Amino acid sequence: MRRTSLPTHADIEAAARRIDGYAHRTPVMTSRSVDENLGARVFFKCENLQRAGAFKFRGAFNALSNLEPEVRAKGVVAFSSGNHAQAVALAASLLGIDATIVMPSDAPKSKMAATRAYGGRVVVYDRYLDDREDIARRLSEERGSSIIPPYDHPDVIAGQGTAAAELIEQVGPLDGLFVPLGGGGLLSGSALAAKALSPGCRVIGVEPEAGNDGQQSFRQGSIVRIDVPKTIADGAQTQALGRHTFDIIRRDVSEILTASDAELVDCMRFFFTRMKIVVEPTGCLGFAAARAQGRQLAGRRIGVIVSGGNIDDERMIDLLGAR
Amino acid sequence: MRRTSLPTHADIEAAARRIDGYAHRTPVMTSRSVDENLGARVFFKCENLQRAGAFKFRGAFNALSNLEPEVRAKGVVAFSSGNHAQAVALAASLLGIDATIVMPSDAPKSKMAATRAYGGRVVVYDRYLDDREDIARRLSEERGSSIIPPYDHPDVIAGQGTAAAELIEQVGPLDGLFVPLGGGGLLSGSALAAKALSPGCRVIGVEPEAGNDGQQSFRQGSIVRIDVPKTIADGAQTQALGRHTFDIIRRDVSEILTASDAELVDCMRFFFTRMKIVVEPTGCLGFAAARAQGRQLAGRRIGVIVSGGNIDDERMIDLLGAR
Repeated sequence: MRRTSLPTHADIEAAARRIDGYAHRTPVMTSRSVDENLGARVFFKCENLQRAGAFKFRGAFNALSNLEPEVRAKGVVAFSSGNHAQAVALAASLLGIDATIVMPSDAPKSKMAATRAYGGRVVVYDRYLDDREDIARRLSEERGSSIIPPYDHPDVIAGQGTAAAELIEQVGPLDGLFVPLGGGGLLSGSALAAKALSPGCRVIGVEPEAGNDGQQSFRQGSIVRIDVPKTIADGAQTQALGRHTFDIIRRDVSEILTASDAELVDCMRFFFTRMKIVVEPTGCLGFAAARAQGRQLAGRRIGVIVSGGNIDDERMIDLLGAR
Repeated sequence: MRRTSLPTHADIEAAARRIDGYAHRTPVMTSRSVDENLGARVFFKCENLQRAGAFKFRGAFNALSNLEPEVRAKGVVAFSSGNHAQAVALAASLLGIDATIVMPSDAPKSKMAATRAYGGRVVVYDRYLDDREDIARRLSEERGSSIIPPYDHPDVIAGQGTAAAELIEQVGPLDGLFVPLGGGGLLSGSALAAKALSPGCRVIGVEPEAGNDGQQSFRQGSIVRIDVPKTIADGAQTQALGRHTFDIIRRDVSEILTASDAELVDCMRFFFTRMKIVVEPTGCLGFAAARAQGRQLAGRRIGVIVSGGNIDDERMIDLLGAR
């Protein structure tokens, strides 16, 4: 299933056609108070309102719908901290494919429950002790199933790129685009889309401060691997960029910034109280970094990808209550 | 400023033209799990995503923009538990009108802060001791200002009716429409709109169980006044329907149901965890009653007005945490 070449904008266009009618064309929200504070026009692409609660459905559905029938018949295996798991489970169920999902034992309960509710078989591992890729590989060998990686796959990257492509279609060209960064599927797809549809747009990846492997990799020109970072941004606890995602990021991304957990909580509260939407910590990365730029963005048209909204209510209560 | 005749659908059409470009055309959301559980098609009209966080902006802007210039110059006074206050303050600020808002001392902090942030002067009273209408009347006499009542005014009713009118334009005819009920502005406006745009649609008002004055009034054919009800639905703590709203409700509404505070919390949690939107308790009334109908709605096309999303994060934490 792996291809060696990097995906292109044509692959994003093909992905957009495949997911049409299955994925939501998510709304773009704006906030007068944000625009006034930054002196900019800020467009929030609300992938928290995507099916299964995150952009991940785009890449998963694209990858699965691109499998040949005889491959589909043997099922798929995915490893994920949560949103990719739900996305693969839902996409597989829509396409009639059997899915097994390898999830860390400390994944949000809501994500695990939703994965099961979509019909996925869940296999649990310890995030700090086990190697999820090994477990997935063993499961796939047992059954001949295809592994659907969470980010480092051309079809996944192309699918994720449809979110930025849609945003630019919805609001027009951008001067800057802030994108959450974990393994780099969303960021590399966004960069491919922006380069084609809004040339000159600076694409900025944003990582949790505690897990800045992407920033280090970007600066030193080779993939840096770190220990599992401890951050509330559970969707960005990846240890290293992928081979495909890194190649695209180093070529097409302008900069990688970080945001602290405290900044993420502050943004969650803003989304909650002012915009009336639920955004998970990882989904706040883009806005946290954009907001920290302050008046440097004045006069610009800025896109922010709000990547997901999957958070347990107890967890949200803990995070918002601790101040 | 008071007119004696009841508003009509033509007044809603005029209101829609006046608010165009000022109010948001709010999105309609759907949920596959809700549709599966009820066997129905349910359309949520998301007025929690309206400007100032609630449908109230529609009526306030319509009423204020209909004032003559010499009347505008003397300013306006409003009394409100919260959302009408913010709505009048924002509409007044957009139209360059001076606004004084009479608010209960226990109104949500976020609502009071937002009212001030929109430029409104806030005068506080005790919900259980003072008569807010007396206070507003005195303030209006001092300055010659116009009182903008929260619901019992033809222009306010016509403005609120634009939400249901938009919903029917967005999704087509409905078999039933569930609408939160406090003083009846939203319900009577919705009933006028539905009668004109989707004849045969049953319009159902939904009150807090602890404050069912509307249900009592509807059943006995005259306005029943109750003590201030103790409920978490702070937007529906009204003591009696208005004269105009009652006349429309008795004529055009099919039924009035109630929902308990526990049901409202359950719906808030559903909106939060599954639909990723923040809805205040009052905004959950419509869905709480629709959901309680269960399979009685099977095969039907059902509208639910989600009336507002203004709730303090601490309050949300208290309500969702207590289980």
